[in-house]
Amino acid sequence: MSSVDLTNAAAAAAAPFEDRPRPAGAQSVRHLRFEPRDQVRIGLIGTGVRQGGLVRSLAPVPNAEVVAIADPAPEAARSMVERLVDLGKPEPAVHTGDDAVDDLLGRDDVDLVLIATPWTSHTPLAVRAMKAGKHVGLEVPAAVTMEDCWDLVDASEQTQRHCVILENCCYGRTELFALNLVRAGALGQLLHAECSYTHDLRDMLTKDQPWRRQAHIDHDGNLYPTHGLGPVASYFDINRGDRFTRLVSMGSPSLGLQEYRAKHVPEGDPRHDEDYRCADINTSLIQTEQGRSIVLQHQVVGPRPYDRRNQVVGTNGIFTDYPPRIFLEEDPVHGTVNGNAGARGGGHVEYSEIDPYLDAWEHQLWSQEHEAARKSGGHGGMDYLMLLRLVETMRAGEVPEMDVYDAAAWSAPTPLSEWSVANANAPVDFPDFTRGDWAEKRSGIN
Amino acid sequence: MSSVDLTNAAAAAAAPFEDRPRPAGAQSVRHLRFEPRDQVRIGLIGTGVRQGGLVRSLAPVPNAEVVAIADPAPEAARSMVERLVDLGKPEPAVHTGDDAVDDLLGRDDVDLVLIATPWTSHTPLAVRAMKAGKHVGLEVPAAVTMEDCWDLVDASEQTQRHCVILENCCYGRTELFALNLVRAGALGQLLHAECSYTHDLRDMLTKDQPWRRQAHIDHDGNLYPTHGLGPVASYFDINRGDRFTRLVSMGSPSLGLQEYRAKHVPEGDPRHDEDYRCADINTSLIQTEQGRSIVLQHQVVGPRPYDRRNQVVGTNGIFTDYPPRIFLEEDPVHGTVNGNAGARGGGHVEYSEIDPYLDAWEHQLWSQEHEAARKSGGHGGMDYLMLLRLVETMRAGEVPEMDVYDAAAWSAPTPLSEWSVANANAPVDFPDFTRGDWAEKRSGIN
Repeated sequence: MSSVDLTNAAAAAAAPFEDRPRPAGAQSVRHLRFEPRDQVRIGLIGTGVRQGGLVRSLAPVPNAEVVAIADPAPEAARSMVERLVDLGKPEPAVHTGDDAVDDLLGRDDVDLVLIATPWTSHTPLAVRAMKAGKHVGLEVPAAVTMEDCWDLVDASEQTQRHCVILENCCYGRTELFALNLVRAGALGQLLHAECSYTHDLRDMLTKDQPWRRQAHIDHDGNLYPTHGLGPVASYFDINRGDRFTRLVSMGSPSLGLQEYRAKHVPEGDPRHDEDYRCADINTSLIQTEQGRSIVLQHQVVGPRPYDRRNQVVGTNGIFTDYPPRIFLEEDPVHGTVNGNAGARGGGHVEYSEIDPYLDAWEHQLWSQEHEAARKSGGHGGMDYLMLLRLVETMRAGEVPEMDVYDAAAWSAPTPLSEWSVANANAPVDFPDFTRGDWAEKRSGIN
Repeated sequence: MSSVDLTNAAAAAAAPFEDRPRPAGAQSVRHLRFEPRDQVRIGLIGTGVRQGGLVRSLAPVPNAEVVAIADPAPEAARSMVERLVDLGKPEPAVHTGDDAVDDLLGRDDVDLVLIATPWTSHTPLAVRAMKAGKHVGLEVPAAVTMEDCWDLVDASEQTQRHCVILENCCYGRTELFALNLVRAGALGQLLHAECSYTHDLRDMLTKDQPWRRQAHIDHDGNLYPTHGLGPVASYFDINRGDRFTRLVSMGSPSLGLQEYRAKHVPEGDPRHDEDYRCADINTSLIQTEQGRSIVLQHQVVGPRPYDRRNQVVGTNGIFTDYPPRIFLEEDPVHGTVNGNAGARGGGHVEYSEIDPYLDAWEHQLWSQEHEAARKSGGHGGMDYLMLLRLVETMRAGEVPEMDVYDAAAWSAPTPLSEWSVANANAPVDFPDFTRGDWAEKRSGIN
């Protein structure tokens, strides 16, 4: 082994993003409770495909009402009104034109704004909404630059309004099952997790969402980290006893969109002149303050089955997903020790399906709300559960289950991975968005 | 995004291991053919559990004979003689005592030495054997330090003797199936691979193999990279058109052996004083000259099902293992395009079992030798196929399918990962063990 110690050089390379001090007058929102209320009155910013999905999932949530919508384009707003009426809801006030957002934010009958717009507008709109006194539910990714991340934190702390990241995957059935496993201690001491956003979006990127395709031109890194990382953050109590400390990232070649375009875009189309820089597969490693490791992946431009991986490993076993399966050495459900583990020569043990474990560890949201979630449709029901919990915590005057520190920490891998890839896979430190409070235990998803 | 460019600092941290210049009089063995011969006469160094397995797998290989064995311990050597006789083989000459190895290497009736001994002795013994004029089949890991890696390369080039790494997993059925997929172009352009050595060895480490447990005291990194990485190197033509350029590595907490010891080692035993530093799970990312990325993992001290992952991804699809499954967009076997891939909203496509693809892509070694491989037993038959091909290439006077450059490149992640982990996950460059010849196409496993 070499005895050369280049820790200092490595550390120098690892601090391109400086922590931002708390602005005067701002204070932490970690324990900030919503004001209790009977009814949650909601304004929508953006009326596209994703907002349509949210509205459908919100429809069965009791005591929540969309009172106003904003979209510069009148025809988009009109189609959202129709959708609400079709869902049996009252017609909302409609704001269109250049002042649509300001008009909606100026209303005094809106408690919560749901923002579902192109990515680069997420943070500026959320900051405006908080500054207008509204709580925010913000689609993912909440932020696409490190400036964005800090802007969200500062705005939430300055206005004492919440910015709840709408990370629906945190409410997925197998994600909440895994969370229960972790909380019951069934996996032993936690070691490692793996997560991914593997979703073949070539058709959508090429044909329908030029703003989303633009990210593949402008950036080379993990463009969409939160679907995988949000649930892992729950397992590891990130910002509630642990925190992300460091990231390294690596790309593959960038070929998928180019091959797809060659087959599906007509000759002479200007899309043939676009330069897609983003690696087809970006893989990052994240270390936590407790020494745990995380594999985080992004792959959206190639023909692979959908996969969020959703794996969490501890000293007593492993849960991994797609399809969901589990192995526990000491198995409290079956009251046994799976004694082959550790056997000489590696007597092989096998995964089990999770069905036998559901009686013990199905999350109460899924056991109580399974039928409503299933009927609501949005991503198998997790959208409904996410919005249900947001509305419930607002009505009860509780602390939200996901806050602005989560929004920032789960979104930060986008700029961090881009920096690491651009700097020959150098490690890069995560900012501490809690500004020193990460070690304090407090509740997350209930 | 920060515009700070710290590429130089990162690069400075990335060069702790310097390439070693070729010694005077040495020359590349890349195209060195074995001397043709009818019979391959074999000497064994080490007569432990692993050598016993090799001998059993070697038994059905035609025209190969164990003529001599060496082990300092007479009783171990005696039991190997009995094993050979039980297998219906002639009694070999037996060398024991302090000069056992020298005595065996001094024989003029040995063409090939098989070395299966504790890890740290692999390289020194292989170098001695080559300097004594013998070709070597060397168990994994071939080398445990970067000095080792270069010592192997130098010795092979100086003596013009081959050092064939005995990486049996390169001959696994699903590994060779994947290799055929790659070579047929069925996966499209190659992007990414993932591999692992996930094998619960706590019982063996705690009870039987103190030298192997010692590695967990002395090192924190990937202690055993070749089972996963050897096959991936075949897929990516490493040292035959591509090469590993850079590695970053990250560990998890070190808890597994400690927990196991607490449960299974009697109080007062000196093993309770051992300090196990090695992370339970080590994950590395490796970049290649062609821009591909690799996830490489090591986890041997926790209760998880056995898994080498064995995944390779290209622009047309993916093969992944444990259990083996495949998805191809343009599917030449079925003459179809799996058109859901890329569908708007991500119409989900699913993996298929590999059975329907075996007619097209079962490797000829497995279709021709399946029965013999199965009957031979060693790790499902791959040990037999590896030794069969080694003996066949020696008899035919061909270039071996795995050589000293492979041995060095596949073993190098041990010191590289240890360095990266010790240096806050800094990237570290791979040496080019071919000394500039990596881009030249040439055959590997046939």
